[in-house]
Amino acid sequence: MRNTADQKLVRKLNNNIIVEILRNEAPVSRANLSAITGLNRSTVSSIIDELIDGGWVREIALQTDKIGRPGMLLEINPDGGFVVGIEIGVDFLLCLATDFSTEVIWRKSIKIDPEEGQVAILQKAFDLVEEAIVFGKKKCGRGLGIGIAIPGLVDVHDGVLKLAPNLKWENVPLRLIWNQQFHYPVYVENDGNAAALGEYYFGAARGIKDLIYIAAGYGLGSGIMVDGKVLRGNKGYASEVGHMTYDPNGKLCSCGKRGCYETMIGPRAVIENVQKLIKEKGPDKTIIKISEGNGNAINYDAVVNAALENDPIAIDALNDVGCKLGLVVSHLVNIFGPRMVILGGALNYAKDFIEPVVERVVKQNALSLCQEDLVITNSFLGQESSVLGAIGLVLENLWQI
Amino acid sequence: MRNTADQKLVRKLNNNIIVEILRNEAPVSRANLSAITGLNRSTVSSIIDELIDGGWVREIALQTDKIGRPGMLLEINPDGGFVVGIEIGVDFLLCLATDFSTEVIWRKSIKIDPEEGQVAILQKAFDLVEEAIVFGKKKCGRGLGIGIAIPGLVDVHDGVLKLAPNLKWENVPLRLIWNQQFHYPVYVENDGNAAALGEYYFGAARGIKDLIYIAAGYGLGSGIMVDGKVLRGNKGYASEVGHMTYDPNGKLCSCGKRGCYETMIGPRAVIENVQKLIKEKGPDKTIIKISEGNGNAINYDAVVNAALENDPIAIDALNDVGCKLGLVVSHLVNIFGPRMVILGGALNYAKDFIEPVVERVVKQNALSLCQEDLVITNSFLGQESSVLGAIGLVLENLWQI
Repeated sequence: MRNTADQKLVRKLNNNIIVEILRNEAPVSRANLSAITGLNRSTVSSIIDELIDGGWVREIALQTDKIGRPGMLLEINPDGGFVVGIEIGVDFLLCLATDFSTEVIWRKSIKIDPEEGQVAILQKAFDLVEEAIVFGKKKCGRGLGIGIAIPGLVDVHDGVLKLAPNLKWENVPLRLIWNQQFHYPVYVENDGNAAALGEYYFGAARGIKDLIYIAAGYGLGSGIMVDGKVLRGNKGYASEVGHMTYDPNGKLCSCGKRGCYETMIGPRAVIENVQKLIKEKGPDKTIIKISEGNGNAINYDAVVNAALENDPIAIDALNDVGCKLGLVVSHLVNIFGPRMVILGGALNYAKDFIEPVVERVVKQNALSLCQEDLVITNSFLGQESSVLGAIGLVLENLWQI
Repeated sequence: MRNTADQKLVRKLNNNIIVEILRNEAPVSRANLSAITGLNRSTVSSIIDELIDGGWVREIALQTDKIGRPGMLLEINPDGGFVVGIEIGVDFLLCLATDFSTEVIWRKSIKIDPEEGQVAILQKAFDLVEEAIVFGKKKCGRGLGIGIAIPGLVDVHDGVLKLAPNLKWENVPLRLIWNQQFHYPVYVENDGNAAALGEYYFGAARGIKDLIYIAAGYGLGSGIMVDGKVLRGNKGYASEVGHMTYDPNGKLCSCGKRGCYETMIGPRAVIENVQKLIKEKGPDKTIIKISEGNGNAINYDAVVNAALENDPIAIDALNDVGCKLGLVVSHLVNIFGPRMVILGGALNYAKDFIEPVVERVVKQNALSLCQEDLVITNSFLGQESSVLGAIGLVLENLWQI
């Protein structure tokens, strides 16, 4: 049966609109809500009554600065419930809990090693989430759901991780597993998509409907929003910008193909560049100082610190990777004509060396009309963008349409 | 004011749904429509009454193959009106008129030379459309609108061509100009977007919501549909896949940048390849026969004919361009995970040499999950896809929401 618009749908749509307004613009009165939405006063009042009864919204004070009958001001009730988000990274777990007003009330992260294996890593994730739930219950009472962000191709409908090349996980029914462990609604999302959603709900891109989030870390992930919706493609797998081929004869990628952009963009690529440049040009004194004379011991933080001290090898190495990232972003700007491109991920620890290079390369390589009004910026939420996006998914789906 | 769902919107949505069903599935009865849409019988009947009164729909016969009260079968009334579409190509004009059932009732094309200049070309276009209108009026009475497809960046909201590098036109207020000439609603669309819409409404991609149309001709244009909507980006300029940079030090492109894919994909690139190969390997007897011994006189048809006679130079030249097109398509498959990729444009005159190469390169270079259920196919509508898409736009906007 085709979707036709009916009363129930209309009610849910209007419900969501009102909660969204309260999230972004509270405190507001019923009269404000009526003016903003165009819904009549009695409809607004009946929706608000239900939301107050449910503990989602609360009255806070009498609006006194207006002429006419004063109305009670409304806001989201922070104690409406708590949400837990967890990001399963390649080498870390990051867990947050927020109250219903999306204030972070609890956070914890731990290092992991992908070689520990799936069972051990999931157990650690359960333990973190359990801690978060205990805290959330004390603070806000009811739990509203769990959002999971993970670096892989996700069937969001069924909550199944299909493939995470860098974790080497395949076909893991995450929602099912987490539902057995915790009795809350569970949403699973690709980390790039989750980060785009995080920035859209709470970060750099509030209200921006055409945006590209791109993060270079262990892999090169992205999340793309087109007209306010995550780009998902026909079967749910899209935005795999890191696996565009740059050089068909290039380095082997974790996906099994050769020469993907992912093999040339990210902290590992920067370190490889440094090692190559040291071999070519001879080691440079800052790098040597930082790596304590051992070229193999160089880590990304050391390179960034060397660049901050004007070390030419470190700067060259970052510049080269920034140019390649800029080329990927140029492709995406020509294709999507976005309003905003957000750079994130571990590479962005060197944001002062990456973002200006990306901007320059995009200016040169994208059509000028496609970059009209474009803003290229660094992530506002940093390493928490994916987790917060996963939390946003739980909230967005509280009243499912 | 935010959009809230109201009765008028609901009515228009339901109107459009019913006309769409009649277009695709007629003949159907009111009862069928009610079953398909889930709308109740009286709502369907009142919509149908209006559509019949307006001359858009007609009753054709009593449905007699069912048990129960027989109902009149309905279909789109072809005489509901006519629509004219025109494609302004770089070196041709193609004009079509269809009746309200989208049957083509008139067609004509002429060659042009971009050097003739804008005024002369527009005058020729007016003359063609005038002819089409005279015919359409005789056949169907009322004219419903004019759709224009053009190879450039279009502000579809205002109907302004912002930039057409290959025509060398800039900031042409096409809708305004055409409105002064003809008193019909005018829609202007980029040729790639129009072709994607044409295939979506009437061609290879009926009912397919995630599709990429890519055409290599004078330029390399594309139209991308995401979840049933044309990808437009923030300011209306997107899908410029031909201007992704392949080689920053490559050949100068008409857009002013260097090394765009567009400079390396298309009939001109094939001919350049042939000329280069002749220089390298010495001319080959089939090519010589076809070009009458003059390497500079080689045209694309001659190369394709030579390839059909197994000429190795012609086959190599086509293969090289097919590989590069395959690389572009691979990028797009990784990004969009589409259901269908449609190959069109003049390059596709050699479709037997291009499409299999594109398929092979995509299989190698796109992630397997992103190409799950992917179909790569040649355009069904051929050179008429853009014009038919422009006509579809007029029809889609008859009852504007």
